[in-house]
Amino acid sequence: MINNRKIIIIGCGAGGGTAAQFARKTDRNSIITIFEQYNYSHYSKCGLPYVISGEIPEFINLIEFSEDWFKKQRINIILKTFVDKIDIKNKTIIAKKGKEQIKKEFDSLIIATGAIPYIPPIQNVQKNGSLIKGVHVLRTIEDGQKIFSNIKKGKKATIIGAGLIGLEMADSLYKKGMKITIVEALTNILENTLDNDMCEPVLNELKEKTNLYTNHIITEVQDKDGHINQVIIKDNNTHKEIKIDTDILIIATGTKPNIFLAKSIGCKIGQTGGIIVNKKSESSIKNIYAVGDCTEFIDYITKKPIPVGLGSIAVRQGIAAGINSAGGSYSLPDGVLQTCTSKFFGIEVASVGISGENFISGKFNGSSLPKYFPGGKPISIKVISDKNGKILGAQGVGNNAAKRIDTFACAILGGLNIETFKKLETAYAPPIAPTLDAVTIACDIISMKLSRKR
Amino acid sequence: MINNRKIIIIGCGAGGGTAAQFARKTDRNSIITIFEQYNYSHYSKCGLPYVISGEIPEFINLIEFSEDWFKKQRINIILKTFVDKIDIKNKTIIAKKGKEQIKKEFDSLIIATGAIPYIPPIQNVQKNGSLIKGVHVLRTIEDGQKIFSNIKKGKKATIIGAGLIGLEMADSLYKKGMKITIVEALTNILENTLDNDMCEPVLNELKEKTNLYTNHIITEVQDKDGHINQVIIKDNNTHKEIKIDTDILIIATGTKPNIFLAKSIGCKIGQTGGIIVNKKSESSIKNIYAVGDCTEFIDYITKKPIPVGLGSIAVRQGIAAGINSAGGSYSLPDGVLQTCTSKFFGIEVASVGISGENFISGKFNGSSLPKYFPGGKPISIKVISDKNGKILGAQGVGNNAAKRIDTFACAILGGLNIETFKKLETAYAPPIAPTLDAVTIACDIISMKLSRKR
Repeated sequence: MINNRKIIIIGCGAGGGTAAQFARKTDRNSIITIFEQYNYSHYSKCGLPYVISGEIPEFINLIEFSEDWFKKQRINIILKTFVDKIDIKNKTIIAKKGKEQIKKEFDSLIIATGAIPYIPPIQNVQKNGSLIKGVHVLRTIEDGQKIFSNIKKGKKATIIGAGLIGLEMADSLYKKGMKITIVEALTNILENTLDNDMCEPVLNELKEKTNLYTNHIITEVQDKDGHINQVIIKDNNTHKEIKIDTDILIIATGTKPNIFLAKSIGCKIGQTGGIIVNKKSESSIKNIYAVGDCTEFIDYITKKPIPVGLGSIAVRQGIAAGINSAGGSYSLPDGVLQTCTSKFFGIEVASVGISGENFISGKFNGSSLPKYFPGGKPISIKVISDKNGKILGAQGVGNNAAKRIDTFACAILGGLNIETFKKLETAYAPPIAPTLDAVTIACDIISMKLSRKR
Repeated sequence: MINNRKIIIIGCGAGGGTAAQFARKTDRNSIITIFEQYNYSHYSKCGLPYVISGEIPEFINLIEFSEDWFKKQRINIILKTFVDKIDIKNKTIIAKKGKEQIKKEFDSLIIATGAIPYIPPIQNVQKNGSLIKGVHVLRTIEDGQKIFSNIKKGKKATIIGAGLIGLEMADSLYKKGMKITIVEALTNILENTLDNDMCEPVLNELKEKTNLYTNHIITEVQDKDGHINQVIIKDNNTHKEIKIDTDILIIATGTKPNIFLAKSIGCKIGQTGGIIVNKKSESSIKNIYAVGDCTEFIDYITKKPIPVGLGSIAVRQGIAAGINSAGGSYSLPDGVLQTCTSKFFGIEVASVGISGENFISGKFNGSSLPKYFPGGKPISIKVISDKNGKILGAQGVGNNAAKRIDTFACAILGGLNIETFKKLETAYAPPIAPTLDAVTIACDIISMKLSRKR
């Protein structure tokens, strides 16, 4: 047992903030310090689109744990302070707060430096290393505030990237009365979340409410007096170019792990570009932990490394790093399931595990309620298994997709076979769910496919 | 392979109707006949309260598979026909349709005779073997129609029994503008569904909207010109009696399995009074199957027999009996989880597995959404485990309780420990669910209790 163990956390996002809390719970006498380069303590990045849409009143509402809260927990939180060096030999970090230099020793260090938005190679999108006016990324409250101040009802918004965040932003700006264009380089939307056949309900909404260009890239941005006024998009197949007027461009093409500090001290970096961490959330260097979007972790199903890009995983890594860095013991499961969900244009989507293109799948389009009960809403479930029926993934679109997918997350963690799952007694009552839920019927469909093959 | 296998099903409820469908799917050449003593084919008994409340327009909407539908599947369906004898030696049933006698041979027989409402010993509640006017049970469409014709806004309704059906009926009649009194012999409501500590939100609604008398029995019914106008209730402790005016009395005190026919041919009857069936839904006599409320089955956790009282179990037994009776092969899991749900006075409740009074439990009162997202609704989750952390049951009250409980049903079927479940990656997005859902936090709470004990 170390007395007055010194724990330093770099970054106060979901991962870093959670780590601090669990370190405090684990060791009441540890000296915990968080350095955060921006202006706000532990807040929900995932909530940003909903402030922009107006569903959440203010950006500061997103703060889940305030500076005061951390102080009450005797956690030193130092905002607006950039850690620019780790002296690994002397176990010291060197940070800058304005002109002041801060040096601070640690016994355990938790790197929670997050990720940096990836900016695709678009001509004229940046000037002197900064995005031109009207071009935005969405990573911080500060980014959100800039977008918010640029929203004008009836004006035009272009979004590049039709992943979860791109579509959340499309929905938010649509709700604000903007005219939306979405440009996606791939042929499918939601590439990392849903198989193509599951996207139909979302595509129908997008086609009705936005201009969607899949299989297109933005080659160039044009400006008037330094403010964007047009994007030039190009069809990947025909190479045909179109000019689209726009008042604002949101770049939602993913992120790159921020590994500058970790790399400088020799933490092993993985093939996806993130810091390699083990089940204790420890990096390749003893007592140096890493959590969240700056890391990569093993996929539970494929056993291959994947970039950590979900707040839910960052929080779970934060629990592990917080407990372990403070002398406790906590192991994460053997990999991440990547359970995720979102909602746009009124449609809830969710997925877990691997996608279905190369595996056996069962799909069922059902209703949230028995046929005879008024008000049932569509729910589509697709389950993915290997040839022995072991459940590898699932996707849901529609009513309560997320909670239905949670059941599959549990099934994957428990190693359930579709033959077991298809017999699952789900809760039934006419105003709540049908006797046989879409989740079990989808498994029944795989089961029939497999029995035909035998 | 039997050619033109003759399958007879007695009773066209959820269990019998489902059995017929799956028998047809399994053997296209079998000759399937269903006998149903009442007027309607396969309908949802569970839907009856919602026709009474007006949420479902008509009783006939409850019919899930019509006479015509069965006929199109080449399933003979004979309504209004009472099977009064099984000649087991000659594998023949003898039925009465009015004055006509029908004799029909079978190779496989499926008994789906359901259950009969239990009528408590209340003085004057019956006359000449029939309930007096204004006193009702709710088992069939015919029962529902009688209640419906007796509903009058502003008049008084008394319900005996505060289980799921009693409270569903209380809610339905409340919605019709009646003044509701509920009388429950036990000290707790929802005895088979929720632990006492989980009932609070429901109790609060009941106290506000109804007159609830727990720990009371009805001793006597009084009538005026043969129609009920008063009940006399008695406190179980003080024996104090109160007279309550009422225009209608609904008896919802459970059921007794209808085993007359099964017993007559020597099917083994279990200690709960239901027909004993195995995982194939076969009774103690070869080729005689039984499904639904006339049976008992093994509880998955306790391995003790329990009466089958849920439509969801009847349907699953129907699948097994249908497939097996037609020469296929289908086994149910090693017992029933008793996953169940309902909703009354706006509150969704759900449970699975065993209750918590004698085990270790973890309870968490959370919200359906992150704190910062407006519109989050309360959700309370209680998880029950043994001393090694094996999940044995769970209860939920509030938002999406049923779908959350389904995840625990899966966990029980997969033999998950709370140490695994508490790390489950549930789907997170601000408008849908918090980063850490109540389901995992409740497990975390048991985990902490157990680690303190070690």
